[in-house]
Amino acid sequence: MLQLPSVALENLHQFSATEAARLIREGGISSEQLVTACLDRIAETDEKIEAWTFLDPDYALAQARAADELRASGRPIGALHGVPVGVKDIFDTADMPTECGSPLYAGRTPSGDATVVARLRAAGAIIMGKTVTTEFAYFAPGKTRNPHDPERTPGGSSSGSAAAVAAEMVPLALGSQTNGSTIRPAAFCGVIGFKPTHGLVSRARVLALSRTLDHVGLFARTIDDIAILAEALAGHDERDPDTRPRARTPFAQIAAAAPPVPPVFAFVKTPMWERADGETRAGFAELIESLGERVEEVELFPSAAEVWEWHKTIMDAEMAANLAREYDDGRDRMSEQLRALIERGRRVSAVDYQRALSRIAPLNESFDEMFEQRYDAILTPAAPGPAPTGLASTGDPCFCTLWTYCGMPALSLPLLESENGLPIGVQLVGPRGGDARLLRTAKWLAAKVAERE
Amino acid sequence: MLQLPSVALENLHQFSATEAARLIREGGISSEQLVTACLDRIAETDEKIEAWTFLDPDYALAQARAADELRASGRPIGALHGVPVGVKDIFDTADMPTECGSPLYAGRTPSGDATVVARLRAAGAIIMGKTVTTEFAYFAPGKTRNPHDPERTPGGSSSGSAAAVAAEMVPLALGSQTNGSTIRPAAFCGVIGFKPTHGLVSRARVLALSRTLDHVGLFARTIDDIAILAEALAGHDERDPDTRPRARTPFAQIAAAAPPVPPVFAFVKTPMWERADGETRAGFAELIESLGERVEEVELFPSAAEVWEWHKTIMDAEMAANLAREYDDGRDRMSEQLRALIERGRRVSAVDYQRALSRIAPLNESFDEMFEQRYDAILTPAAPGPAPTGLASTGDPCFCTLWTYCGMPALSLPLLESENGLPIGVQLVGPRGGDARLLRTAKWLAAKVAERE
Repeated sequence: MLQLPSVALENLHQFSATEAARLIREGGISSEQLVTACLDRIAETDEKIEAWTFLDPDYALAQARAADELRASGRPIGALHGVPVGVKDIFDTADMPTECGSPLYAGRTPSGDATVVARLRAAGAIIMGKTVTTEFAYFAPGKTRNPHDPERTPGGSSSGSAAAVAAEMVPLALGSQTNGSTIRPAAFCGVIGFKPTHGLVSRARVLALSRTLDHVGLFARTIDDIAILAEALAGHDERDPDTRPRARTPFAQIAAAAPPVPPVFAFVKTPMWERADGETRAGFAELIESLGERVEEVELFPSAAEVWEWHKTIMDAEMAANLAREYDDGRDRMSEQLRALIERGRRVSAVDYQRALSRIAPLNESFDEMFEQRYDAILTPAAPGPAPTGLASTGDPCFCTLWTYCGMPALSLPLLESENGLPIGVQLVGPRGGDARLLRTAKWLAAKVAERE
Repeated sequence: MLQLPSVALENLHQFSATEAARLIREGGISSEQLVTACLDRIAETDEKIEAWTFLDPDYALAQARAADELRASGRPIGALHGVPVGVKDIFDTADMPTECGSPLYAGRTPSGDATVVARLRAAGAIIMGKTVTTEFAYFAPGKTRNPHDPERTPGGSSSGSAAAVAAEMVPLALGSQTNGSTIRPAAFCGVIGFKPTHGLVSRARVLALSRTLDHVGLFARTIDDIAILAEALAGHDERDPDTRPRARTPFAQIAAAAPPVPPVFAFVKTPMWERADGETRAGFAELIESLGERVEEVELFPSAAEVWEWHKTIMDAEMAANLAREYDDGRDRMSEQLRALIERGRRVSAVDYQRALSRIAPLNESFDEMFEQRYDAILTPAAPGPAPTGLASTGDPCFCTLWTYCGMPALSLPLLESENGLPIGVQLVGPRGGDARLLRTAKWLAAKVAERE
């Protein structure tokens, strides 16, 4: 018996990916209907938001019709069959331009797909189009505006992906994070952002800024959707030397299960707490109170305070190496911020760089101990506050740096709200490799907060 | 029926490890007899050679008697049960000092064993003592002399291990290689030296000079002995992040088999050929001629010429980082050469360092293609000539640098000889991961050369 969708058919664009995929599989809706609804939604809202840098509605519909034909043929279909996904414009796509937010890459169409784009296609997803990134996924903003308030930044660097999911243009989108580029825009736009463990998802044929710090990021409006997307993306790829052969993780199944015992959270303020604004502090105070004995405040070991400097050393040095040709050939068409970063990076010594790298493993060991002793997840802000006013900056990534440096899985959940109705993100962080369990813990927390309301 | 050993019992010290282990297993000899013979040999020859920096005969005998008792108890024994092994003094040993050839480490006894020392013990080996290394396994020589001529260097940095095996003091020894520290002394001393694929053998609790370039090295007098030792040492170790979980390789079994078809060799002169002396050139000309159609001269791709510079950049930068504390606290007790290297390393930029690292993977891809198309092994000199006269230098590692940089398995075989009877090494190199097959190919070559003589 066909289960009725939770939203009316005229509002197909509001469907979660999980619901939409199920309905397409069962024949309740077609991919063409879903993609049409999403394109209508884009036509209606994107003039104000400008989440897309490349969108060809006819091509998206052609993909959808092909997906519908495949399903009709009775051949096996993937977990995301017929579901549209937005892809940040730093992921290579063989059939669409990939310009990385820089005039230096204008008109570039790669010869092949990024591994994760190929994995999306293999799972049956529709590559809806390319979403706006900041310049080379660094700080200089693109054109995108925050769907909650067009005078505010959507955050960066995955600006378009976060805004497109928030505005219900697509249920899923891909981004990236080298400092705070997934968690921060997810928090500012009020969606769920997920940065999996370093090395879980391949970065082959994705703009390379920093092998040590680059992560693929995931955007969705439900935790189940994050799980289904993570399951489609995760896996070993010979072309990304930081991925490893490992058994397939049933993300969706683990995320859907109840924790065997209620989780315990470690509330970690981090040395950045003084940057958190009043509303964030108040929101966290309330959240902590409501969690009662399920949460304890934990002080970080002193060495953690140096991470922001180590992260900067690595990011400067690795970006200077990776963007050396772009700098040499086209620095006049780079933002002042990016030029300054590359020039700093060129001055980093190999010894300082190695020292900064060498602290990652022992820091993870300290965190692993902390988790093993008692905690299921760290609870910490995703950003200093809601999206700031103005479009000249994409905001402060300081609450993400530590977890990116360590390569730990991090999730931003839109659980708090400012007085004027803007979303404030709550960040959950787990031990390396604990991605699926982190999603399960997040579902428990989201349900707990919902029942309080 | 007990198979008779190939040497008389009074010459037990000449036994190969494979023969000795078999006889001990079968009860033909005891470990105590074998170790006594080796200690007698050391007493007789080491005054001139000085291969050892730590040797406690009573303790070696105590280990041997314990091994004999274990065997007598009927409990299972390992592949090297009762066989003495020399260990370069940069491998941590919980029961012996580990001084790394530096006054800065004088009197240091570590709290635990290096992983490979623990693996040797698990295989039943007797840790005979610690062999002489150059200062911090770099260039400043130790006291060891070449067993073929005490006025000549044994090569370095694994000087004592190569000399001890050559002088029949032990059948097996451990060394290391960051540039040419196993292949070169093996060639100069006329024994077999083997540097396995980078990451095949753990370097945990071994003096760390360069994570990228450091390899454990193996010394023996027969290829079968190299195989049995490699099989005991290889394997994943969580404490060495460059080792990987993988299925156990039956080195001894593969090395013992005949190749399905006669191998084809690529004779590679490398850009260092002009440093090869007349006897080496003549020896190779003869060897190549005798191999007929089984060998072809192959010109390297042009990018290979830059490897020596890239290797130096990495070695300087990584040694400067790894020996930072030693330099800061004790540079006045360092050799001028080591000080100069560390000072060069401190001036390397992070961008140049990353560039030097980034060439390793594509270069290996080029070599992999070369092997896949046609060749079983590369044939190339192990050193520019026989051991040079004088003890102030350990000789030139230039014929090893390329293979160390690439992390490819390399083997030195004592197949040639100078007019005055000094050994000249022939180096065989295989593709990464092709270690066992390389040993099989080497056996074919050694047999071919023997049949010619």
